[in-house]
Amino acid sequence: MNIEILAIGDEILDGHTINSNAAVISRKLASKGYVTNKHTVIPDCQDKIIQEFQEIFVEKTLLICTGGLGPTEDDTTKKAIASFFDVSFEINNEVLTDMKHRYGDISTLENQSTVIKDAKMILNPEGTAPGMVHFFDRGCVIFLPGVPNELEAMLDQVMLYVEKAYPLSSVPFSKEVSLFNVKESDVEPKIKTLNRKELKVGSYPFLGGVQIRAFSQNEKKLTSYINQIKNIFPNQYFFSDEHKIEQALHNLLIREKKTVAFAESCSGGALAAAMTKHPGSSEYFLGSVISYSNQMKNRILGVSKETLDNFGAVSKETVTEMLQGLFEQTTCDYAVAVSGIAGPTGGTKDKPVGTVYVGVAKRDNPFDIGIIYKKGSRKTIIAYTVNTALSILYRKIAFNKDTFNE
Amino acid sequence: MNIEILAIGDEILDGHTINSNAAVISRKLASKGYVTNKHTVIPDCQDKIIQEFQEIFVEKTLLICTGGLGPTEDDTTKKAIASFFDVSFEINNEVLTDMKHRYGDISTLENQSTVIKDAKMILNPEGTAPGMVHFFDRGCVIFLPGVPNELEAMLDQVMLYVEKAYPLSSVPFSKEVSLFNVKESDVEPKIKTLNRKELKVGSYPFLGGVQIRAFSQNEKKLTSYINQIKNIFPNQYFFSDEHKIEQALHNLLIREKKTVAFAESCSGGALAAAMTKHPGSSEYFLGSVISYSNQMKNRILGVSKETLDNFGAVSKETVTEMLQGLFEQTTCDYAVAVSGIAGPTGGTKDKPVGTVYVGVAKRDNPFDIGIIYKKGSRKTIIAYTVNTALSILYRKIAFNKDTFNE
Repeated sequence: MNIEILAIGDEILDGHTINSNAAVISRKLASKGYVTNKHTVIPDCQDKIIQEFQEIFVEKTLLICTGGLGPTEDDTTKKAIASFFDVSFEINNEVLTDMKHRYGDISTLENQSTVIKDAKMILNPEGTAPGMVHFFDRGCVIFLPGVPNELEAMLDQVMLYVEKAYPLSSVPFSKEVSLFNVKESDVEPKIKTLNRKELKVGSYPFLGGVQIRAFSQNEKKLTSYINQIKNIFPNQYFFSDEHKIEQALHNLLIREKKTVAFAESCSGGALAAAMTKHPGSSEYFLGSVISYSNQMKNRILGVSKETLDNFGAVSKETVTEMLQGLFEQTTCDYAVAVSGIAGPTGGTKDKPVGTVYVGVAKRDNPFDIGIIYKKGSRKTIIAYTVNTALSILYRKIAFNKDTFNE
Repeated sequence: MNIEILAIGDEILDGHTINSNAAVISRKLASKGYVTNKHTVIPDCQDKIIQEFQEIFVEKTLLICTGGLGPTEDDTTKKAIASFFDVSFEINNEVLTDMKHRYGDISTLENQSTVIKDAKMILNPEGTAPGMVHFFDRGCVIFLPGVPNELEAMLDQVMLYVEKAYPLSSVPFSKEVSLFNVKESDVEPKIKTLNRKELKVGSYPFLGGVQIRAFSQNEKKLTSYINQIKNIFPNQYFFSDEHKIEQALHNLLIREKKTVAFAESCSGGALAAAMTKHPGSSEYFLGSVISYSNQMKNRILGVSKETLDNFGAVSKETVTEMLQGLFEQTTCDYAVAVSGIAGPTGGTKDKPVGTVYVGVAKRDNPFDIGIIYKKGSRKTIIAYTVNTALSILYRKIAFNKDTFNE
C-alpha cells in the first residue's frame, strides 16, 4: 500500500507556516510500522488539487490530506473533493450537535459540520473542523484540519482506521543511539567497519551530535550493532526518541531521583523550556533564573558587581558565581549556568559572537566550567548551547565524567 | 517559471525531522516576490529521485533540492543526479581548500568537495557540504545541504543566482495584520462585507488569534483593507512577520523604551525564550524567574509559605506575590507572571489541566490578573499561555487597556 501525505495551503508554500503536520503524522505511522512514501504541499487551487489527486491515485494509496477545510476557507477543497471522489456534502447532525455543545450557537458551525456524505467522521476535540475518512476503489483518503494541535489530538483515532483497514504482516525493528560532542564526519570512519548485514543504517546530524538509526527484521543483529557503537563511544551516547538529549536527561534525572536548577543568560530560557516541555519535569526541575541583565545576576544570584565589572558577564568568574548562587538559593543536587554572546552583535575580538561559558556542577564538588565557540546564527548558537550544556550534565550524571572537554 | 522545492530524506518521511527547510526557502523566495508552487519530500532512493526529477522537469522549472549529500550519505543522490542531469562529479579545489582551512585534514572532506563538474559553487559557512547551482535546458536546479542552520546560512547566496537568472517584472504587494484574543469563526462574519476587489485574502489561525493576509497589485486598496480590519478590532491587533505577538511586542518595547521582567511557572521558560530569540531583546528584557518549584517561588520571588499553603501555587494570590517579587527584585517597568497546570496530570476538579493564572502589571499601577482555561496537550497549553500573556502585555502597553478579559 502506497502511503502519502498531502497538505493543501498557500500559507505553507509561502513559508509562513512550517508543515510540521506531515512529520507528526509520519512519525505516528512509523511507530506502528507504516512507511510514508511521499509528502507533498500544493496551493489552495481547485485545479491543482484535482490534478494532484489524479497523480496520487494512479496506484492504490492511503492518502492523508491536511488543511483547506477551515471555517473561512472558500470552497476550493470541497469542490475538488466533490469532483474527484464523486461525492456530495451534507450537514452531519452528530458533528453539529457536538460543536453546538462546545461552542454554542455560531453561524459558521453549519459550514464546519457540512461533511462528505457517507464518510466516517473523526471528531475534533480542540477545534471545529472534523476529520473525514473516505474509502473508495483506489484506496482511502483521510481529511484532517490543518491546525497542528487539532490534528495531533485526532491522530489516535486516525490510526484506528488505518490499522483496521490495512493491517501489517511484519514490522521491522528499529533502534537508535545518539552521540554527543562529536561531528558526523568523525563518526563515519569509526563505525564503517561494523557488520551491517541485514541492517539498514542511517546517520542524522543534529546540533552538537549525530544520531545513528538502524532497521532490521533481525532484532538480535540490530541490538548487537547498536551495542558496538556504544562501546566505540563509551562516554558520549544517549538513548531517546527524536535524538533529543533533553529527553534522555529527563528520564535519567527521574530514575536517579536528582534535582537540578539552571542559571541562564544567553540561552534566555531555552535551557529551561527544553526540560519543562516534558510532563513530569517538576519531579526534578526546581527552576531557572534567567538573569539576562546584570541587575538580576547580582540581585538574585549574588554575582558580585566587582566580578561583573572586572571580568564581564561572559566570563568563567561570572558563571562560577552563578553556580554558587544556585546552590545557595535552592536545594538542587546539580546546577547548570551559561553566559555567552548569542549575537548577531555584542561580540568583541577576545569574545566573538558564539563564545559561551558553560558551567555544570554537582553540589559539594568542584565546578566544571568550559567554553564553547560556535559559529552561526543566534538560533544556532542558542540551540547548540542548550544541547551542549545538557549533554555535559547528562555525562556527569550518567558516566560520572567531570572533565568538560574530554 | 515553475518553482518547486524537493527534499530528499528518509528521516523526514519517517517523521524524525520536520521539513523546516522548505518553509525557510519559500519564505526567502516570497520576500523577493517569487511564488513556490510545490514542496515535495521523497526517500533516499535512486529510482524515486530520478522519477521525481522527470516529473518536475516536464515543465521549465527552478528546483531547489535539499538533503541527500552529507558526508556519510551513500551515493544515491549523486548517482541520481549524474544519471538524470547527465553530469559528472569531480573534486573542486576551491571547496577543498576552504574546508581544509576550516576543518583541517579530514578524510571525508574529499568526498564532500566532490561536486558537479561545471556547476557553480555556494560555499557552506557552517558545515562541509557545499551548495551547487546547475543550469540546463529545462531550467535550473540548486542543491543545498539538509542541515537547517547550514542551509539558512547559504540562502542569501542562493537568492543572488535566482534573481539574476529569473528577474521578476512585477511583484504583488502584501500586507498582514494579526488579531489576538479572537477565534477564526468570530472574525469571518465581521470582515466578510469588506470590499475585496483586486485583493487576494487569506486567514490563518494561530493559538490565541488569527492572522489576515492580503495580496494585491493595488497598494492603496491593500492598505485600505488592512486599515478597515484594524478599525473593526481596535484594541486587539498587531503587526509582525510570522503572526508572532512576541515580534510585535519586541518592537514595541524597544520603541517605547520600557523594560520587562517575567516570573514563570507552568510556561517553564517558554515565555522568556519567545522574547530572547530576538536580537536586541537585552535592551528591554531584564530576565525571568522560572520558579518551577515552591522553594523558588518562596526564596527568590518572596511568595509567602502561607499563600502557597492556603491558596496553592496556581492561584490569583500566588501570581500577585510573584508580580510583587518582580517589582521588588528588579527595576522593570512591566511585570508578567504566570502559574498554571500544563498537564497532562496535576489537574483537580476545581483547577483542571489547562487552568492558568496570568498576571500583567505596570509598576505602581493595579495588577491585572485573569484566568485562562485552555483544553489541549501540554504543548498547546504552554504555547497558548505564552501567546495570551504576551498579547495582554502588548495591549496594556500599546492601547493602555487594563481589563484582562475585554
